[in-house]
Amino acid sequence: MKEMLYEGKAKKIFLTDNENEVIVYYKDDATAFNGEKKGTIDEKGIMNNQITTILFEYLAAHGVKTHYIKTLSDREQLVKKVEIIPLEVIVRNVAAGSFSKRLGVPEGTELNTTIFEICYKNDALGDPLINDSHAVAIGLATFEELKEIYGITATINDLLKEFFQKIGLILVDFKIEFGKDAQGNILLADEISPDTCRLWDAVTREKMDKDRFRRNLDNVKGAYEEVINRMKKG
Amino acid sequence: MKEMLYEGKAKKIFLTDNENEVIVYYKDDATAFNGEKKGTIDEKGIMNNQITTILFEYLAAHGVKTHYIKTLSDREQLVKKVEIIPLEVIVRNVAAGSFSKRLGVPEGTELNTTIFEICYKNDALGDPLINDSHAVAIGLATFEELKEIYGITATINDLLKEFFQKIGLILVDFKIEFGKDAQGNILLADEISPDTCRLWDAVTREKMDKDRFRRNLDNVKGAYEEVINRMKKG
Ligand SMILES: Nc1ncnc2c1ncn2[C@@H]1O[C@H](COP(=O)(O)OP(=O)(O)OP(=O)(O)O)[C@@H](O)[C@H]1O
Ligand SMILES: Nc1ncnc2c1ncn2[C@@H]1O[C@H](COP(=O)(O)OP(=O)(O)OP(=O)(O)O)[C@@H](O)[C@H]1O
Ligand SMILES: [Mg+2]
Ligand SMILES: [Mg+2]
Repeated sequence: MKEMLYEGKAKKIFLTDNENEVIVYYKDDATAFNGEKKGTIDEKGIMNNQITTILFEYLAAHGVKTHYIKTLSDREQLVKKVEIIPLEVIVRNVAAGSFSKRLGVPEGTELNTTIFEICYKNDALGDPLINDSHAVAIGLATFEELKEIYGITATINDLLKEFFQKIGLILVDFKIEFGKDAQGNILLADEISPDTCRLWDAVTREKMDKDRFRRNLDNVKGAYEEVINRMKKG
Repeated sequence: MKEMLYEGKAKKIFLTDNENEVIVYYKDDATAFNGEKKGTIDEKGIMNNQITTILFEYLAAHGVKTHYIKTLSDREQLVKKVEIIPLEVIVRNVAAGSFSKRLGVPEGTELNTTIFEICYKNDALGDPLINDSHAVAIGLATFEELKEIYGITATINDLLKEFFQKIGLILVDFKIEFGKDAQGNILLADEISPDTCRLWDAVTREKMDKDRFRRNLDNVKGAYEEVINRMKKG
């Protein structure tokens, strides 16, 4: 096995013989509330690898530039090594989670406009919400890069909303990360899975994502499996 | 005396015989940390009335539309009644206060760009930081209104920075509020004073504003007096 570059809460990153490529290894570990709640979800790593693979291939087929190269095994993907831009880019189609809490808007409320948020990816500070001028002021990105990131993010939202709608799931919100490759291109990186999205059943509004873990609901694994099954059929 | 419309933490608003005008009465009460710390600063109401009068007259003379009509007494101003847009609009020229704390940037750090922030004016929620899409999503303003507000705010920052620079003060940051008059015009409202600005002596970097109260420094009243004295000479 190659040298480990980084161990995160949900994944490990390994170096390869090619300095421009790394391997993402998906773990079963689950955390919530900035690492305060810890646990594991049996086979989550296998499921999130499958889900991310399908979604990144779908996005790439629709013109989105991603870090994804290929899937190597049930827990491993080969991806382009990028320098992660230290922002969590969040899209909200329906009120939920921290947005609902901070602004006193009940979960499930329809919004007048799609919400785009950026948070400073910094665990010690608790990934605080920021705005564009904050990001530029502290050197996280330029205004031009942010404009490009929002453009790609809006496209990704349109594509993912349609994808999930077809399989009876509402894409409530999601978090993505971007990185820069060796040539300076901005690529979609990291993962897109029920760990990083809120997905509600379109009919029952049942939560089909990591909120089941966060809120101690039953059948966390079953929800992830149901998402995969619908994705494979859909 | 006319009917009181509203009593805030630092000011009272009274109705007048003209339904489009109200009287602002400046109190000596001071609060900090969302009302947790309470006190009074002797003659603050008189000083902030004077300071706001000078600044609003200066801004109006330079084309900024404000609610200010005239000063009636040592604690009272006649202003146009507006419907306050529930946003605190903040400009930061130098890192300080909540920005420094939330993002781990030491006070006094120069910034790559001027920071413009909006907070949802809602005491129960603690005036949380939001972005434009949040404001539009929950119906606080439209994107067009926000654009106009940022434009006016940038002009105000340029004018105030120059004004204070000439009297040896650094305008570190400030908070303003906007309202809509009966015709739907967006006007600068509320106050601009050492309660709502951070002002540092350009040479000694001494704090000449409400941070003296927040941080239990001595001579709070003296700092406000010094600001007025320089403004009157300058
Ligand atoms: N293509 C890539 N090249 C380099 N790093 C990547 C790439 N894709 C994702 N990463 C980074 O690898 C790590 C994946 O691990 P994981 O998601 O478990 O981290 P985490 O616990 O969420 O912590 P954090 O994201 O805060 O570092 C993340 O830091 C992510 O930003
Ligand atoms: N021209 C105006 N017409 C109507 N209301 C105004 C006008 N200018 C300011 N106000 C409002 O009057 C109040 C002034 O009181 P003060 O500044 O003491 O309030 P506060 O304690 O800061 O509380 P808050 O601003 O959160 O209501 C504020 O609510 C302010 O928004
Ligand atoms: Mg992660
Ligand atoms: Mg006020």
